[in-house]
Amino acid sequence: MRYPPLLTDLYELTMLAGYLEEGMAEKQAAFDLFFRTNPFEGGYAVFAGLEPALTYLEELRFLPDELAYLQGLGIFKPRFIEFLREFRFRGKVTAPPEGTVVFANEPLLTVEGALAEAQFVETALLNIINFQTLVATKAARITHAAAGAPVMEFGLRRAHGPDGALSCARAACVGGVRSTSNVQAGMVYGLPVRGTHAHSWVQAFPNELASFRAYADAFPDSSILLVDTYDTLKSGIPNAITVARELREQGHELCGVRLDSGDLAFLSRECRRMFDEAGFPAVKIVASNELDEFVIDSIREEGGRVDIYGVGTKLATCGGAGGGALGGVYKLVEVDRLPKLKVTSDIAKATLPGKKRVLRAVGDGGLIQDVICLDQDELHGGDTVYDPCNPLQHTTLPAHIELHELRRVVMDNGSRTGGSETLDIMAERCHRELSMLPQGCLRFINPHRYKVSISGRLNDLRNRLIEQVRKGE
Amino acid sequence: MRYPPLLTDLYELTMLAGYLEEGMAEKQAAFDLFFRTNPFEGGYAVFAGLEPALTYLEELRFLPDELAYLQGLGIFKPRFIEFLREFRFRGKVTAPPEGTVVFANEPLLTVEGALAEAQFVETALLNIINFQTLVATKAARITHAAAGAPVMEFGLRRAHGPDGALSCARAACVGGVRSTSNVQAGMVYGLPVRGTHAHSWVQAFPNELASFRAYADAFPDSSILLVDTYDTLKSGIPNAITVARELREQGHELCGVRLDSGDLAFLSRECRRMFDEAGFPAVKIVASNELDEFVIDSIREEGGRVDIYGVGTKLATCGGAGGGALGGVYKLVEVDRLPKLKVTSDIAKATLPGKKRVLRAVGDGGLIQDVICLDQDELHGGDTVYDPCNPLQHTTLPAHIELHELRRVVMDNGSRTGGSETLDIMAERCHRELSMLPQGCLRFINPHRYKVSISGRLNDLRNRLIEQVRKGE
Repeated sequence: MRYPPLLTDLYELTMLAGYLEEGMAEKQAAFDLFFRTNPFEGGYAVFAGLEPALTYLEELRFLPDELAYLQGLGIFKPRFIEFLREFRFRGKVTAPPEGTVVFANEPLLTVEGALAEAQFVETALLNIINFQTLVATKAARITHAAAGAPVMEFGLRRAHGPDGALSCARAACVGGVRSTSNVQAGMVYGLPVRGTHAHSWVQAFPNELASFRAYADAFPDSSILLVDTYDTLKSGIPNAITVARELREQGHELCGVRLDSGDLAFLSRECRRMFDEAGFPAVKIVASNELDEFVIDSIREEGGRVDIYGVGTKLATCGGAGGGALGGVYKLVEVDRLPKLKVTSDIAKATLPGKKRVLRAVGDGGLIQDVICLDQDELHGGDTVYDPCNPLQHTTLPAHIELHELRRVVMDNGSRTGGSETLDIMAERCHRELSMLPQGCLRFINPHRYKVSISGRLNDLRNRLIEQVRKGE
Repeated sequence: MRYPPLLTDLYELTMLAGYLEEGMAEKQAAFDLFFRTNPFEGGYAVFAGLEPALTYLEELRFLPDELAYLQGLGIFKPRFIEFLREFRFRGKVTAPPEGTVVFANEPLLTVEGALAEAQFVETALLNIINFQTLVATKAARITHAAAGAPVMEFGLRRAHGPDGALSCARAACVGGVRSTSNVQAGMVYGLPVRGTHAHSWVQAFPNELASFRAYADAFPDSSILLVDTYDTLKSGIPNAITVARELREQGHELCGVRLDSGDLAFLSRECRRMFDEAGFPAVKIVASNELDEFVIDSIREEGGRVDIYGVGTKLATCGGAGGGALGGVYKLVEVDRLPKLKVTSDIAKATLPGKKRVLRAVGDGGLIQDVICLDQDELHGGDTVYDPCNPLQHTTLPAHIELHELRRVVMDNGSRTGGSETLDIMAERCHRELSMLPQGCLRFINPHRYKVSISGRLNDLRNRLIEQVRKGE
């Protein structure tokens, strides 16, 4: 699927035209893509969307009808339209692999190249990375709550448009979701597709039992029967047990039932008991209905016996406190080898200037802390590092610390430097890194704040640039 | 743009296969698409998304690679794949025009046709109508708060994927937004595109004044300068005034400035005063930064002098209480001429059975109430009507009441019955209807509840069917 170059804010085009007019288009620049607050008031985020972002960058070019449209707007000069005809992205991109656990203020993507190219791609990169990272994070939270029970993505009908659903299915799998109801996502991304049936199926038959028999007849080895159309305990489950017996006589086994309303903790316990007593301990119990990490948590706490969770709206739209959108931004950090800063009245919102690396300290199989430093920095145990949001706060790195580069160059001269990873590999990375996080970071309410520091030289550079701005230099 | 037939929940396909096996695929059925709660805890919703929904229905067909994918899943029989090859939507659709103000429990779309076809299109219709109606409603609320000041849609970077942004721009215009920053939306839907520049533009120059001069030089008649990169009042606005003077000397006028941080009410008042005193009363003040209907309301209450609002995240992701997703559902209401009902333990959630009309009572230039009745019902002044959520509550229609059909047949035999409307016409309809609503319905907090009743015969039918289900008939 092509991500059209016009899927951009108009100002990227007017700025591009302006840089060209000013002879600045070829100046070398670097931009950081980062977010300032972890989504969902949580302790972490899961980076996702890199693969589609790189595809966008590699394939970026304007088609004749797009150029004709721009010309027709009447705000661009003909030579700018000619410039766009040959416009390509030839820059360099540094990023962590998808599924990496990341934190507020860390540069995720760094885009280097001609000012024209590196600026222009801002909107598209934010559109892709913001949403996919948000969904992958939500999926990781939900998967964590499910504690090993598989989670299915059911959000297509409430997602924000066709692609909102498709991107959601992909990113949800990076975050640990195992399958989707979205058949298109199954085809495009090779995801397992799953489903049950609707209430309307039951209503279309003279009675519930007839509808269950018909569905089991059509799919004898994969039927999941929806048991809450009339009365879950008095009608739905007894009818499902009848059908399970009939299937077994024919040499098949009922796959499962789905609970879609009511007290899911209570109903799942009763459902388990009824199926176990009837001799069907392998029948799976699927639960759905406005689930999210908090509801799943409470179902488990109350001894619910749900085997599989189907999560729709809250995953596809990333609802809840601190949700809905990831506030990723894309800020200029260097032009012509000069580090750049954006200040505001709030020091915590001043950007981190210059080209930077992100180092992750690992020890005893766990993540200890991250340090953001300048490209040419050398960091060692015992070095003093600073809180990026509070320059008065500083700590010392442990003496024998092992530091890993979080990111690598994934694109150079506009071409990928390596092959693509499968979604399974990304999901495994996410799972592994979350298991290495301090447990308190996974908490949903008031999570432990994972330490992200900046190096002394980066802190000095930022303070110097802030002073320059204050003095109006 | 094609909406692929596989962009569906898997269960639509398994149910379709099941209906075919059971010889039920050709039974005549009717489904209602409706929502149970107005979004944003508000007093109304604005219907949108019909046009793309009809395009989906008209163009619905499976391509060879899609059929091959389905075959490869291993869950469908070859004759079902053959059936899909010729599968088309040949049904009938009844709906209000886009931009119509609608309310909870009213059938929006009614889809009639063969059970196979009418069921299959559920997921896609919900995906399209849910999101566009949600955005149109949010846009109407924001536009109402702006009280005549134009609103620009700026949400692409935070929208849910590429199409989340594109659908958003379209639906926002139905709800009253006047322009978008999304160039692709401009091309596809013919919307006016607008923009300013980014902070990075300012940072890329040696100083703010140089950056403003360069931008004004490139766009002498359409420049909107972003004045908050360093200090809005001490640096940004004075520099913008300098550039406004220089432009005027060259025979041009500065178009405007944009405030993107800080106290927008205070800053806009100061900004207005400074430009007025400098002799530039026509320079427009654009405000942005996490705006929504509540923030805009407070800016106006505090005497803010904003001329144009740029609204991004909160519009594109429809954030806020009761937001994020419209809970539209698609329920079977008739099969083989028999009315169908879905009951739950909560009477308010029992569906309204049978094929229905929606009538709107208008009087003295205002909307009075809506009544949902059965297709064959005749309603007159003096008739008793019932609260759909509380059958004990009933009222009498005023004696001389004028009732209009809210919906009409928009598709028959799978083809549109009429031409397409422009987005401008839809936006005018929305604006007109909102101005006819009781004012309290427009309130953001605890709005007046517009009365939607059901006819006596519909109430009787529902009660009779509920009794049947309770008796297990």
